[in-house]
Amino acid sequence: MKGTAAGSAVFRERVDEGLAAVERAMLDVTDSQIEILRDASRHILGAGGKRIRPRLLLLTYMALGGIDLERVAKPAAAVELMHTASVVHDDINDHGIMRRGRPSVNATWGRTFALLTGDYLFTAVYELMAPYGDLNLDLAQAATALVEGETLQATAVKENEFSREVYMRVIALKTAALFRAAGAIGAKLADASQREIEALSDFGFNLGLAFQIVDDILDLIADEESLGKTSGIDMDQGRGVAVALGADNGNGSVPAADPMAAIKRKMLEGDTIAKARQHADLLVKEAIDRLAVLDETPAKQALVELARLVVDRDR
Amino acid sequence: MKGTAAGSAVFRERVDEGLAAVERAMLDVTDSQIEILRDASRHILGAGGKRIRPRLLLLTYMALGGIDLERVAKPAAAVELMHTASVVHDDINDHGIMRRGRPSVNATWGRTFALLTGDYLFTAVYELMAPYGDLNLDLAQAATALVEGETLQATAVKENEFSREVYMRVIALKTAALFRAAGAIGAKLADASQREIEALSDFGFNLGLAFQIVDDILDLIADEESLGKTSGIDMDQGRGVAVALGADNGNGSVPAADPMAAIKRKMLEGDTIAKARQHADLLVKEAIDRLAVLDETPAKQALVELARLVVDRDR
Repeated sequence: MKGTAAGSAVFRERVDEGLAAVERAMLDVTDSQIEILRDASRHILGAGGKRIRPRLLLLTYMALGGIDLERVAKPAAAVELMHTASVVHDDINDHGIMRRGRPSVNATWGRTFALLTGDYLFTAVYELMAPYGDLNLDLAQAATALVEGETLQATAVKENEFSREVYMRVIALKTAALFRAAGAIGAKLADASQREIEALSDFGFNLGLAFQIVDDILDLIADEESLGKTSGIDMDQGRGVAVALGADNGNGSVPAADPMAAIKRKMLEGDTIAKARQHADLLVKEAIDRLAVLDETPAKQALVELARLVVDRDR
Repeated sequence: MKGTAAGSAVFRERVDEGLAAVERAMLDVTDSQIEILRDASRHILGAGGKRIRPRLLLLTYMALGGIDLERVAKPAAAVELMHTASVVHDDINDHGIMRRGRPSVNATWGRTFALLTGDYLFTAVYELMAPYGDLNLDLAQAATALVEGETLQATAVKENEFSREVYMRVIALKTAALFRAAGAIGAKLADASQREIEALSDFGFNLGLAFQIVDDILDLIADEESLGKTSGIDMDQGRGVAVALGADNGNGSVPAADPMAAIKRKMLEGDTIAKARQHADLLVKEAIDRLAVLDETPAKQALVELARLVVDRDR
């Protein structure tokens, strides 16, 4: 018992050390000679965020025996920067004025500089990953998928073609692909076997799906204050997501006055949210099953906890 | 004589073959499952453009003895896609409605999809380059420089701080860095010596500076029809560029009615354009001097011609 507790304390210290190295890597690579890019990058990075993607990559690496925290920190930083780049561009397209409890880059610096800051964060990903050889294949594919998912979503909203099938395809592309890459890269960096790489890629992928479903539920039902960001879901998208998550197809039945409120009320009244949460729970359970390839270590336990946290959160 | 002419015909065929492989690589990597990304990418790529960056990379490779056209085609496609991504985002920020003789992506698909198409072209660069190991370092640095240059320019325009010094820094970052990378990558792919790599990097860099100066002159004096694009230069930027290129500092002296016309008239009347062209000529001459490391081959001759074409063009 004592040994385990001590081992666990050492493990937690190592995780903190790894996450601190991730923060350093993100700050270092965004230390631009151009003031506004540096300031805007640090504004959005400094606001925190859950850091779930770099945590996933780091814990996967550690669970498979990886010990070089400096080496793993840069790819872990890269996946978080990729996500952050997409968030900055999202806030342009969705007119988001709050993000991570702060004014968005778009709201603070305007559209031109928000667009360039997002581009800059993309190029920072590229710079960080350049020395990592074939691991670039994993992240490049995830980057393309992310943009494809965002585009598919914008198209579906515009054409009013948001079905459950489209929704699942959107979240697979825009969210789960990057979670999968985080798992794959963490495993490959630890020189894992093909079987382990596949298991941890699947773990990441399912976790990503669950994460996005819970995110969308929170976006639909929460108010901005507790969410810390402008809800990324407008009315058309809200109706689509609600349908996709299992609500009755409310097409045409939503009253014109404050339709988002009507969608929210409808979701809160029915069992839509309960059903969507069940789906997320199932995905997380499947994800955790894939961790059977791992030895019992504090890092494996931390991955299980991370997965549970994804569904058991209220922001 | 006959031998040279025949060798030259074979050489030209090889160049055409290489450029065709570049076009194929660009089409293949943008063959997205998401219709709008595929269509918008092909709309802008299919409009042509001068393809000067991939040509530079390809000719550098051939001038240093490279023969694997399939291998060189992907990095050459990547530098063109990087440029194209920045052009698509530029047209959002500058409200450009024409590009390469066609309606811009922004004008055709709207801002949201133009932003995503630009992002997608960035990720296509990343996908193409992923198998190329350390060459990613060159292109990643150029990508960051490009975004920094665009940002510095936007800042200088906004703050009315466009001096000659700022202008030279802007074009070094936003244009010459990518030309330099094209030279460096072409040379490295051909397994060139360090001395050759540096010479061809310098060639690219100076050529990039000259190219942008000529581009800005054409933007300032040409009308949209002959240029095939919306002039990327608005009034504040126009005044800044004019000053940077050697015009009298016209601050405050430009009449309010059609100030761009006044700037144009002023430039056409004075010797500003002649001086700017002289500067570009000088840069091209310096660039060509750096080709002394190369053996006399048709590819070297083609690089010299490419350099001359950069300054002797009217669009």
